[in-house]
Amino acid sequence: MPADSYERLVTHLKRAHTLGTVAGLLGWDEQVNLPADSADQRAEQSALLAELQHAAATAPEIGDLLNQLEQPVCNLLSYKPAGGSAENADTADRAVVIREARKDYDRVVKLPADFVAEKARLSSAAYHGWAAAKTRSDFSAFAPFLEKHLALAKQEAAYLGWGDRAYDYAIDKHDPGMTAEKLTALFTELKAGLVPLVRAIAASPVRARTDIFKGFPIAEQREFLRDVTERLGFNYRRGRIDVSLHPFCEGSGADIRMTTRFDADNPLDSLFSSIHETGHGLYEQGLPLAAQGTPLGQNAGMGVHESQSRLWENQVSRSRAFWAFFEPRFREKFPAQLAAVSSEELYLAVNEVAPTLIRVDSDEVHYNLHILLRFELERRLFAGELTVGELPAAWNALSQELLGLTPTSDKVGVLQDVHWSGGAFGYFPSYCLGNMIAAQLWFTVRAKFPELDADFEQGDFSRLLGWLRTNIHEQGRRYETLELVRRVTGEELTPKYLLRYLQERYAPLYLK
Amino acid sequence: MPADSYERLVTHLKRAHTLGTVAGLLGWDEQVNLPADSADQRAEQSALLAELQHAAATAPEIGDLLNQLEQPVCNLLSYKPAGGSAENADTADRAVVIREARKDYDRVVKLPADFVAEKARLSSAAYHGWAAAKTRSDFSAFAPFLEKHLALAKQEAAYLGWGDRAYDYAIDKHDPGMTAEKLTALFTELKAGLVPLVRAIAASPVRARTDIFKGFPIAEQREFLRDVTERLGFNYRRGRIDVSLHPFCEGSGADIRMTTRFDADNPLDSLFSSIHETGHGLYEQGLPLAAQGTPLGQNAGMGVHESQSRLWENQVSRSRAFWAFFEPRFREKFPAQLAAVSSEELYLAVNEVAPTLIRVDSDEVHYNLHILLRFELERRLFAGELTVGELPAAWNALSQELLGLTPTSDKVGVLQDVHWSGGAFGYFPSYCLGNMIAAQLWFTVRAKFPELDADFEQGDFSRLLGWLRTNIHEQGRRYETLELVRRVTGEELTPKYLLRYLQERYAPLYLK
Repeated sequence: MPADSYERLVTHLKRAHTLGTVAGLLGWDEQVNLPADSADQRAEQSALLAELQHAAATAPEIGDLLNQLEQPVCNLLSYKPAGGSAENADTADRAVVIREARKDYDRVVKLPADFVAEKARLSSAAYHGWAAAKTRSDFSAFAPFLEKHLALAKQEAAYLGWGDRAYDYAIDKHDPGMTAEKLTALFTELKAGLVPLVRAIAASPVRARTDIFKGFPIAEQREFLRDVTERLGFNYRRGRIDVSLHPFCEGSGADIRMTTRFDADNPLDSLFSSIHETGHGLYEQGLPLAAQGTPLGQNAGMGVHESQSRLWENQVSRSRAFWAFFEPRFREKFPAQLAAVSSEELYLAVNEVAPTLIRVDSDEVHYNLHILLRFELERRLFAGELTVGELPAAWNALSQELLGLTPTSDKVGVLQDVHWSGGAFGYFPSYCLGNMIAAQLWFTVRAKFPELDADFEQGDFSRLLGWLRTNIHEQGRRYETLELVRRVTGEELTPKYLLRYLQERYAPLYLK
Repeated sequence: MPADSYERLVTHLKRAHTLGTVAGLLGWDEQVNLPADSADQRAEQSALLAELQHAAATAPEIGDLLNQLEQPVCNLLSYKPAGGSAENADTADRAVVIREARKDYDRVVKLPADFVAEKARLSSAAYHGWAAAKTRSDFSAFAPFLEKHLALAKQEAAYLGWGDRAYDYAIDKHDPGMTAEKLTALFTELKAGLVPLVRAIAASPVRARTDIFKGFPIAEQREFLRDVTERLGFNYRRGRIDVSLHPFCEGSGADIRMTTRFDADNPLDSLFSSIHETGHGLYEQGLPLAAQGTPLGQNAGMGVHESQSRLWENQVSRSRAFWAFFEPRFREKFPAQLAAVSSEELYLAVNEVAPTLIRVDSDEVHYNLHILLRFELERRLFAGELTVGELPAAWNALSQELLGLTPTSDKVGVLQDVHWSGGAFGYFPSYCLGNMIAAQLWFTVRAKFPELDADFEQGDFSRLLGWLRTNIHEQGRRYETLELVRRVTGEELTPKYLLRYLQERYAPLYLK
């Protein structure tokens, strides 16, 4: 153990982090490699790692060290370097690490062990309860689990000192500094602009044809995907891509693992899922490796993470400039399959807009409405304006209002998502927050570099990635979400850029 | 923690075991999946897991529990159930667990931490020193590492209470109960029978042709291998096979992972390497799952493990009965590649005998001579009959005497194997011990089941596997190596069955 208190704190943080990365690898392996009958054994391994990780993260010495370290630097928490000397920067870095480590530490030590165990047990039972209820499309079978999760979420917020602001606490866990009030303001403005656009596109006679993509061999899809993701900047010397049932991105530091899935008759789905995960992977690969295990080496939250995946998936990879470069390469891999598909048909398919009841199948225009619906329901549940029993009816009414569609059953309505079975409230808003941030970053970086389209047309994404590296990735957890956006874009987060982006991309295709 | 002392001991053992399995998975993933530039990060993860595993295995409570438990059951260590009641069997099981846990515990707690660290540092430095020395074929550059490893090996034996019987201790670590004296007797008899056989085959005009196997596509090799390994009995619901640079088998309990490598122009090499690993895998899959984490769920030692891999690789899979079933299936996968290869040419290639300086390239007849050479040199080194400086000359002289070949350089002589760079003395003999045990088991089971050949000709290996399950696999670490052999075969371990097996298999091919 180093003699210096700060160094000792960092040693503790890195130890807990390393255990977390091992647990993460067990999880990745479970999704990618685990033999069919090895699940019980893996569950034991994972439980032991979780126990050790928890013990490392709650080591009493971390609390003692934080107490010592907080005194001399407490007035540096809002520190801004003047001359920018290395020593000042170092002091500022330490202040960030201490501030964020305190936040993490309190979150793990202020929750009693039996509360944590109860929540874990409930989540496991609720997951199976949800899966069974969804199969039978019977919300009433899931309702008791959701009631209990709501009660635990309120109790958790109280333990952490948030009083009755339980939903704000849930939101803050995913996006530091964000609140239900701030989200309400952002989402209200977004809704006002989005609903008319969606209605107009729905009334358009233009329809993308995705049924024309048949018989794309997996081996060639894999090669094309490798080409795309490498050109976007994913470093395969520090990561890999594999196949799993649901695509995800896992890992830390020098070992980032993405997954995808392939469907011979739906190559665009795999491609865009993978680019989405690549966006997450590029962010993780861009976090400062030297700070790995400390908050400076960690991502800034769910919304910022999602802004990276969405920016690469949507703003970049659904653009004409992207396809100017990749269309010939796509056709080279699949000459016969694409022979009868025109360039405009391909581009329209890439930018298909069509309403659906299912969030995960949704296009990027409708997607935000699915989130607004979930946020509004979560907000009302926590505010006591809505009971769990009233949830299906409220879901269906909001679905009709926002999407123009009423679920034919709970299975494709209120029971469609897994999140609530794990008590993950305040998680859904991050997706829409990510979309707003992505669009605002997009207009900022394009104003700064008018040559971005020309870059993309050459298959060069390094200028964009370099800017994201400097402005987002290398900042780690230094700033809360809204402050990060303000610093990078020069203005407060606003939905107007997302609305402008959607208008500029989709109006020429559907409203001509 | 359970109240009962024995149950508490088992809980401790299982915890250490589970940490070991996680460390094992990290190692497997490193060989199979790790991105090129992620090695440093993996080294940190593995070091932390090793630290935790060591802490769990040396928990002082294990010592306390063993002290408590050893008193009432000490007279049961040589216990033999009479009526075979469940309670008696349970008591006998507990006695085995306590006895073996004591052995393991002493081995980890009696070594001072700084000694363990010194050996780990030396092994790391010696590995790189060995690799560099091998590249330059310069033994003198490796000699200081080997000197130091020898000194540490003697020190380790002294710590463990073996006095100056350092080589016996090294052997016992791999094969419980075995000694240099016993090995000398076995190997002397083996050598007397083996050298004349090898000389006679070398003088034979018959030559196997392995250069006729060209252009075997990997995908079809993979399918054929899957077919073979499944029919041998490997359970892919509790294991998998992947590709790595060097084939190995890793894992425990319900998750056994083998690796192989493919070469389009050498399909038999991949096939037999994989069957070898399958033999290891079948043993691990046959250990009692309910006893996982305790000595009753662990293998009986290196020699017994090797007996399983060798029996499946050699006795079973190089037999005419095996190929009676698999030759048509092999030809079906590779009709063009095998069109000009007769059945006899194929069978002779499967049973190629040709001297080589390199142990790992050796056929099963010569292989034992490579081991006799290494054992004799290790024995002399530990006995002080040979200095490290004299090793290359002694190696070359023994190589000429046993193999009829003198290494042209240290690279293909004394520096060829990695083992000594890790201080792994007493490891090589296990390979030859495994061959002897495999042959003795082979004659035992064939005497019991004359229908085995007929089974194999139908692609059915279940009768053999069932017998191994009951007699070897399910015994775990209950018996020391020689006692296990005695119990299963009804006589003391002897090299005569290995000699008889080699004579019966190879004389008809080469000495007709």
